[in-house]
Amino acid sequence: MALLMVDHQAGLLSLVRDFSPDDFKNNVLALADIARFFNIPTILTTSFEDGPNGPMVPELKEMFPDAPYFARPGQINAWDNEDFVKAVKATGKKQLLIAGVVTDVCVAFPTLSALEEGYEVFVVTDASGTFNQTTRDASWSRMEQAGAQLMNWFSVGCELHRDWRNDIEGFGGILAKHLPHYANLMQSYGAQQG
Amino acid sequence: MALLMVDHQAGLLSLVRDFSPDDFKNNVLALADIARFFNIPTILTTSFEDGPNGPMVPELKEMFPDAPYFARPGQINAWDNEDFVKAVKATGKKQLLIAGVVTDVCVAFPTLSALEEGYEVFVVTDASGTFNQTTRDASWSRMEQAGAQLMNWFSVGCELHRDWRNDIEGFGGILAKHLPHYANLMQSYGAQQG
Amino acid sequence: MALLMVDHQAGLLSLVRDFSPDDFKNNVLALADIARFFNIPTILTTSFEDGPNGPMVPELKEMFPDAPYFARPGQINAWDNEDFVKAVKATGKKQLLIAGVVTDVCVAFPTLSALEEGYEVFVVTDASGTFNQTTRDASWSRMEQAGAQLMNWFSVGCELHRDWRNDIEGFGGILAKHLPHYANLMQSYGAQQG
Amino acid sequence: MALLMVDHQAGLLSLVRDFSPDDFKNNVLALADIARFFNIPTILTTSFEDGPNGPMVPELKEMFPDAPYFARPGQINAWDNEDFVKAVKATGKKQLLIAGVVTDVCVAFPTLSALEEGYEVFVVTDASGTFNQTTRDASWSRMEQAGAQLMNWFSVGCELHRDWRNDIEGFGGILAKHLPHYANLMQSYGAQQG
Amino acid sequence: MALLMVDHQAGLLSLVRDFSPDDFKNNVLALADIARFFNIPTILTTSFEDGPNGPMVPELKEMFPDAPYFARPGQINAWDNEDFVKAVKATGKKQLLIAGVVTDVCVAFPTLSALEEGYEVFVVTDASGTFNQTTRDASWSRMEQAGAQLMNWFSVGCELHRDWRNDIEGFGGILAKHLPHYANLMQSYGAQQG
Amino acid sequence: MALLMVDHQAGLLSLVRDFSPDDFKNNVLALADIARFFNIPTILTTSFEDGPNGPMVPELKEMFPDAPYFARPGQINAWDNEDFVKAVKATGKKQLLIAGVVTDVCVAFPTLSALEEGYEVFVVTDASGTFNQTTRDASWSRMEQAGAQLMNWFSVGCELHRDWRNDIEGFGGILAKHLPHYANLMQSYGAQQG
Amino acid sequence: MALLMVDHQAGLLSLVRDFSPDDFKNNVLALADIARFFNIPTILTTSFEDGPNGPMVPELKEMFPDAPYFARPGQINAWDNEDFVKAVKATGKKQLLIAGVVTDVCVAFPTLSALEEGYEVFVVTDASGTFNQTTRDASWSRMEQAGAQLMNWFSVGCELHRDWRNDIEGFGGILAKHLPHYANLMQSYGAQQG
Amino acid sequence: MALLMVDHQAGLLSLVRDFSPDDFKNNVLALADIARFFNIPTILTTSFEDGPNGPMVPELKEMFPDAPYFARPGQINAWDNEDFVKAVKATGKKQLLIAGVVTDVCVAFPTLSALEEGYEVFVVTDASGTFNQTTRDASWSRMEQAGAQLMNWFSVGCELHRDWRNDIEGFGGILAKHLPHYANLMQSYGAQQG
Repeated sequence: MALLMVDHQAGLLSLVRDFSPDDFKNNVLALADIARFFNIPTILTTSFEDGPNGPMVPELKEMFPDAPYFARPGQINAWDNEDFVKAVKATGKKQLLIAGVVTDVCVAFPTLSALEEGYEVFVVTDASGTFNQTTRDASWSRMEQAGAQLMNWFSVGCELHRDWRNDIEGFGGILAKHLPHYANLMQSYGAQQG
Repeated sequence: MALLMVDHQAGLLSLVRDFSPDDFKNNVLALADIARFFNIPTILTTSFEDGPNGPMVPELKEMFPDAPYFARPGQINAWDNEDFVKAVKATGKKQLLIAGVVTDVCVAFPTLSALEEGYEVFVVTDASGTFNQTTRDASWSRMEQAGAQLMNWFSVGCELHRDWRNDIEGFGGILAKHLPHYANLMQSYGAQQG
Repeated sequence: MALLMVDHQAGLLSLVRDFSPDDFKNNVLALADIARFFNIPTILTTSFEDGPNGPMVPELKEMFPDAPYFARPGQINAWDNEDFVKAVKATGKKQLLIAGVVTDVCVAFPTLSALEEGYEVFVVTDASGTFNQTTRDASWSRMEQAGAQLMNWFSVGCELHRDWRNDIEGFGGILAKHLPHYANLMQSYGAQQG
Repeated sequence: MALLMVDHQAGLLSLVRDFSPDDFKNNVLALADIARFFNIPTILTTSFEDGPNGPMVPELKEMFPDAPYFARPGQINAWDNEDFVKAVKATGKKQLLIAGVVTDVCVAFPTLSALEEGYEVFVVTDASGTFNQTTRDASWSRMEQAGAQLMNWFSVGCELHRDWRNDIEGFGGILAKHLPHYANLMQSYGAQQG
Repeated sequence: MALLMVDHQAGLLSLVRDFSPDDFKNNVLALADIARFFNIPTILTTSFEDGPNGPMVPELKEMFPDAPYFARPGQINAWDNEDFVKAVKATGKKQLLIAGVVTDVCVAFPTLSALEEGYEVFVVTDASGTFNQTTRDASWSRMEQAGAQLMNWFSVGCELHRDWRNDIEGFGGILAKHLPHYANLMQSYGAQQG
Repeated sequence: MALLMVDHQAGLLSLVRDFSPDDFKNNVLALADIARFFNIPTILTTSFEDGPNGPMVPELKEMFPDAPYFARPGQINAWDNEDFVKAVKATGKKQLLIAGVVTDVCVAFPTLSALEEGYEVFVVTDASGTFNQTTRDASWSRMEQAGAQLMNWFSVGCELHRDWRNDIEGFGGILAKHLPHYANLMQSYGAQQG
Repeated sequence: MALLMVDHQAGLLSLVRDFSPDDFKNNVLALADIARFFNIPTILTTSFEDGPNGPMVPELKEMFPDAPYFARPGQINAWDNEDFVKAVKATGKKQLLIAGVVTDVCVAFPTLSALEEGYEVFVVTDASGTFNQTTRDASWSRMEQAGAQLMNWFSVGCELHRDWRNDIEGFGGILAKHLPHYANLMQSYGAQQG
Repeated sequence: MALLMVDHQAGLLSLVRDFSPDDFKNNVLALADIARFFNIPTILTTSFEDGPNGPMVPELKEMFPDAPYFARPGQINAWDNEDFVKAVKATGKKQLLIAGVVTDVCVAFPTLSALEEGYEVFVVTDASGTFNQTTRDASWSRMEQAGAQLMNWFSVGCELHRDWRNDIEGFGGILAKHLPHYANLMQSYGAQQG
C-alpha cells in the first residue's frame, strides 16, 4: 500500500469548506502520522506552488523529508505527470491511499486514472476537502461508481495495525494525539491506574 | 440469522457522535430486545476491555447471559479472532446482523470479512455509531459496495415478525418500550378502549 | 403502471419525521392527484387499522372510492397478503409506483418482494416517510441496491404527462394546488395576461 | 386586536426561503382562518402590485372580501401610507398582529413604526418570511429590541380562544385543516368513538 | 420552588418535533426524577384529556401519585383554571419550574401569567416541546422578554443539589439513568475500582 | 463533448431551493463561461417559455448567441423533441454535459434517454437545481444507477483544461470570477508580487 | 447616516465561514452599491494590509475612489485609530452602519466604542462575516446587549429608499444585480410587458 | 481581568457535543495560550476529580503550573467554594473571563454568582461546552439576561492585544497555532517574502 498526498497547499486549503479548519488540519496530520508509523511509502505532490495555490503545508514536508516530492509544472491531474506515475509504480504497490485538495479534482482525477490502470484505490475521505458538501457528495459518487473505496484516516490506521498487541503504545499515541476524546479515555484510565 | 454485537463498550461509546446519546442507547437496547424476542443466536465481543475502551455495556451482558462472549486480546477486526469466527460458524446461519462501535472499523471490517466468506450481511445502522456523519457516510458506502444491506432495528424486527398475529403483545411491547410515539398511540388507543 | 399506497394511516403518520407535517401531507395528496389524473390503477392497503396504527387517511379513501382496498389482518409486508398481490397482478402492469409509511418497512418490504418477482419498481420517495433521515438513507440504499428507482411525485407526474400539450390546464391545476411557488408563477402570469 | 397582512404577493413570495413552500402557505392561510374565526379586524396591503412584486395571494383576497385593502403606490413601509395608518387607527385597537413578506422590511418597518406610536405589536413569525434564516434572526432581534413580541399562528389562535368550550368544533376545525398531525389525532379518536 | 407539568399528554406529544422522541421522553422523565429526588412540590395538569389530546403520560401519573392533578375542562392557559392557581399558591413557593407541551402555548401562557403575578419563573426548556425549532425560538424570545429564565433539567438538578456530598449515590443514580454518557463514565470508573 | 443547458428559465428558477440564489446563479454562469472558454458545442432549450415558466435567463442567451436554441412547444423531456436530438447528434460528440432546472425532471429525463442511446453523460450537479435536497438526492440516485457520472462546474473545467500551462490567464480569469476565495488568493499573491 | 467598511481584506476573507463565498461576496458588494446609490458617506479601513491579512478587496477600492481610507498601522479596533474616528466625526452623522470581517472583532469592537460615544449603530449582519455560526451568534448577542441594531443590506437599502417612486429603475437595478430571484421576477414581468 | 477555567476534566469533556472534539480542544488550548501570553491571572478548578468526572486536562495543568488550583470536594457551583472565591478576590480584578464544562452549570452558576457580586463577566463561549446546541442556547440566554457578555477566545485575545505592534510575532504565533487558515495565510505570505 502506498499513500499519495495531493495538493495540500496553503492557498488551496482556504477553499476547503466541507470540514471545519481544525478538523481538517487534524485529519490530514493524523493520516500523515499513520503513514509514518506504518512506513507506508508516501508520495507528495503540488500544483503551481509558486502561484496563488501556495506552498505545501510545512508540516507535511517536515514529516516526509525523504519522500518523493513532485511540484507539478502545470498538470492538474497528478497522474498526467510522468514522474509522479513512475514514482507510484516504483513503490511496487497495487493498493493506493489517495488524499488531497480539492476532492472533486485533485483526488478524483488521479483516483479514476489509477483505477483505470488496475490499481485498487482507497480514498481517504476526511483528509480530502472541497468547496462544500454538495460537491463532495457528487465527487464521492463518481469515484465509488468507478470502483474506489471510501475510507477515513482512523479506519486506514486500524486496517494497517490489525492487532493492538503489535504496538500498543505507538498506535495509542497516535490516537491520543488525534482523537481528543480517546485521549480523555486514556487519561481517565491512567489516572485510576495511578 | 445470527446477531453479532461488536465492541459496545463504555469507553468507545463516548466517541459516538452521529446519534444523540439517548437515541443511540435506545437503538442498541431495542436491537437487543428484538434479538431476544426472536431467539436470534447472539454473539458478543469486545476489544481490549481492560483498557480505555472500557467494559461492555452492562445491559447487554445482562440481557445475553449465556451468549458466546469474546473479549478479544488484541485483534481489531473481530473476524481475525478465531474463536469468534468459530462461534459464528457454529450458529449454522448464513445471514448475519452486525452492529457495533465504531461503524467504520468494528462494523465495517467484520462485515467485509463475512461477505468475502459468503455470508449475507445486514448492517444494523442505527445500533452502530461512529465519530460523525461524514465518516458514517463513507463507511456505509464501502459496505454497500461490497454487498452489505443497510437496515435499522425496527425493520429487522418487522422482517423477523412478518405477521402481527404471531404475537401482538410481545412485539407491541418492544415497540412501546423503544418507540415513544408508538407508545403514545397505544396509550391513546387504550384510553379509549377503556 | 400501477400505484400501491401502503399504510398511510392516521396513527403511523405521527411517526414520520423526515418531512415536515405540511410537506408530507401535500406530497401524499399530490401523488394521489397525479394517479387520478392519469387514471393509474391504484391499490390501497392498511395494517391493523383497528388498533393504534389508526384508519387510513380519509382523503385517500375519498379520492379512490373504487380502488381495491385491503385492510391486512396482520401481514407486515403487504406482499405477504395474497389478495393484495392478486390485485396487483390483476392490473396487468409490470411497473409499480410504491409509496407508504414507514419507508424502511411498509415501502421497502413490498419493493424488495416485487423486484424479486420481476416487477420494475419506482419508489415515490417524498410520499413515503419514516422516523428520521438516517433511517431513510439506509432504506433508500437497500432498495436501490435491489434495483428500485427513486422518484418523487413531481417527476412521476412529468413522466406520465410527457407533453404539456396533452392537457395544459389539467396538469397545471395539479401543480398549482401542490407547488405553491408554481401557483405564484401562474398567478403573476395570469395577472399580466389580464 | 387587529391584524395587518403586509405584502403577501405572488412575486415576493418566491423570495421566501426560511420556510418550505408548503409550510409557509399553510401558515399564512392558518393565520387568515384564525383572524376570520375570531372576527379580528384585518387590513391588507401590497406594494407595487402591478410590477414584478405581483398581485396579492388570491386566497387572502377571497377570505377578506370586505377588509380595507391598500395597494400602496410606492411606500415601502406600510406605515408611511396615510390611508393604511388611518385604517389601523379606525379599528380602535391598540394591539396589532403583523405578518408579511419580507420579514426584515415589510414586517419590521411597520412594527417599529407602530411600537413608536405606542401600539403593542405581536409579530406572527411563521406567517412572515424572508431570504434566509440569518436575515430572519437579525430582523427578529431588531424587533424584539424595540419591544415587539414574537408569536406563531397557533399561539395567536390559542390566546384568542382561551377556552376550548367556547367553540370546540369551530376551533378544532381550523386545527384539523392546518395541523396535519392534529387532524390525525382527531381521526384516530373519531374512528374509535365510532 | 414548585414544578408545574403542563399537558404532557399522549396525543399532544405526537406534535413535538423540536426534539427526537427518545431525547424528549428522557428529558421529561429526568425532570420528574429530579423533582421527586428533591421533593419539589409538583402539580400536574392536562387539557381535554378525553379527546384527541389524549391522557397524561402514564409514567408521570405513576411517579406523582399524590400530586395535585387538574384535568382542565377547557381552559387553554392553565393559569385560567382557578383550582390550578390555588394549588400553585398553596405550595407557598414564589419560584416556579414550568415544563409542558407545546412550548408556545401550554408553557408560554402560564409562564407569562405567573410572571405578571410576581412569580420567578424558570422554563425547563428541554422538557418542553413544540412543532419545530422556529416556533420554539419565537416562544423562548417571548418568555425571556417577559423575564423568564431558561434552564434545562440537568441545570435544575444541579442547582437544587448544590453539593455532591449531599447524596452522591442518589444524584449520581439519576444522572446514570438519564445521561447515557455519564453512565458510561461511571461504568468505566467502577470497572477499574474493581 | 457537448453541453446541454435545459430549462434555465426565470420562472422555473424560483423553484430551485437546494442552492442559495447567489450560489446557483454563480454556478450556472460559471459553467457557461467554461463552455465558452473551451468552445464546447452548447445547445439551449426551454419549455413553454411564453407561460409561467418564463424566458430563458438572459445572460445565457447573450453568452451563446449562435448556439442552437429550442423553445420546446410542449415536450417535458427535451429528448422527446426531435430537433433537439438532431442538434445533439449533429455535434458528433458522444459525451454530454447536462445541466438544468429542475434536476429530477429536466435533467434526469434527457440524461436517462441519452444513456439509453449510448451516450456517456456527465450531470453538472451544481448548475442543476430542484425543490429541495431530498428530491435532489433521489434524482441523483436514479441517474447514477443508470450510469451517469456526477460532476460540478469546477471539475468539468479542470478536466477540460488538463494543464495550467495551456492558458493560465484565461482559466485563472474564470476562477477569479466564479470562486471568490480563489480571487482572494490571486489578489493577495498579486499584491506581493507588486 | 455613514457607512464604515472595516477590514474586508483578501486574506481575512478566507476566514469567513458563516456564509458561502458567493453569498458573502454578493452581500458586501450589494451594501457598497446601496451606499453609493444613496450617497452615504463611506469610510474604508484595513489592518496590516501588507501582511497576511492582505489588501482590501479591489472592488471596494474602485467603488469608493474618493472615500477616506485608513490603512491602520496596528490598531485592531478601528476606533483606536484617531484618524479614523476623526473622519467619522467629520461626516457629522450620528447614525453609523458598520460591516466588516471578522464580526466578533473588526465589527464588534468599533460598534461597542461608537455606542459608548453616543452613536446609534446598525450592524449590517450579512456583509459581516466570521469563523462560524457559533461565534457569530455570540458576537451578535454582545452587540445587541450594548444597544446595536442588527440589519441586512436589503433592509438598509429599503430604509434609505423609503418610496419606490423616488427612483424605481435605480433601486430596481441594484435589486436585479444582487437578488437573483428578484431579477427573475423582473425578467418574467418584462417578457410579458413585451 | 482574570480567567477562571472550570471543570475541563477528562470525563466531563466526553459530554460536550456542541462542538466537534477537535474544535473544542483547540478552543480551550487557544484560550489558555492567550491567558499565558497576556499574563492573565488564571484560576483552575475541578469537581470530584477522583471520580467519573476525571482529572483536569493535563495540558492545562502543565500550562499553568503555578496557578491557584482548587479540586472542589463537592460544590457544584465553584463560587460556593470559599477558597476559590478568595483566590478570585485576591487577583484584585473586577472583570472575569469564565470558561468551563458544562456551560449550563459549571459556567452559568459561577457567572450568575459573580455578576451578583458586582463582577463584570465575559463568558468565553467557544471554550465552554455542553450536551447539545439547545442546552447551550438556553444557558446563553440565561447568562445574557443576567448581564454577562458572550465572547470567543479570538475576540478575547484581540481585545487584550489592542495593537498588533505590541508584539506581532508573539500574538501571530498564537493565531498560527490555533487558526489553521490564518497559518495558511502566513505561510503563503512568507513563501513569497522568501
